[in-house]
Amino acid sequence: MLVRKLEDIETQDVIAYGSTKTKIQWLISKEQGAPHFAMRLFTLEPGAVIGTHAHPEEHEIFVLKGEMGLIAGNGEKTHVKATNAIYVPPFEKHGYRNDGNEQVQFICVIPLLEK
Amino acid sequence: MLVRKLEDIETQDVIAYGSTKTKIQWLISKEQGAPHFAMRLFTLEPGAVIGTHAHPEEHEIFVLKGEMGLIAGNGEKTHVKATNAIYVPPFEKHGYRNDGNEQVQFICVIPLLEK
Repeated sequence: MLVRKLEDIETQDVIAYGSTKTKIQWLISKEQGAPHFAMRLFTLEPGAVIGTHAHPEEHEIFVLKGEMGLIAGNGEKTHVKATNAIYVPPFEKHGYRNDGNEQVQFICVIPLLEK
Repeated sequence: MLVRKLEDIETQDVIAYGSTKTKIQWLISKEQGAPHFAMRLFTLEPGAVIGTHAHPEEHEIFVLKGEMGLIAGNGEKTHVKATNAIYVPPFEKHGYRNDGNEQVQFICVIPLLEK
């Protein structure tokens, strides 16, 4: 078993898709030996945006903290908050917008698809 | 996208492996269309035990709340707490023991292996 402390895990800026004020930490992935999927932690400051995008990887998300808007391909916004679980199917457009006053954190798991 | 509220998700007792005082909620799984892995939430009351066991599925775990002992195959106990991420490789023995005074919650993701 491998135990990782959050404070020991590198924090990276998310810049793809015109994203702002957003950090990612890869909690468990290939580097730790994971064969099938990777668990990441996202931190969105107030005003943060992750631009709408799509990819073959589905998402399984659990919101730890705060509230935010989940943006669909047609621009429609769904309000989600701490303790909500979210499933985003493969190839479905999605984005995120922290339009609250509080930091948002969520866990997002993606498959490690063979390229 | 599918958003699920925790309070709308069925809570089941965990009874396998001699487990006690432990509940599971399947947040996202095959029923929601997930193709590769399932996200579950475990809630362990003080004194809760999940007996040591092993299986082909690896675990990726994130502790949301509380502190507990993680039990290895040799009986060795590792103390883990909220914000720790844990990787349990396939076939490695593991168990859990909430020997604190506080409720423990953790997210645990497993692959949906073909049987």
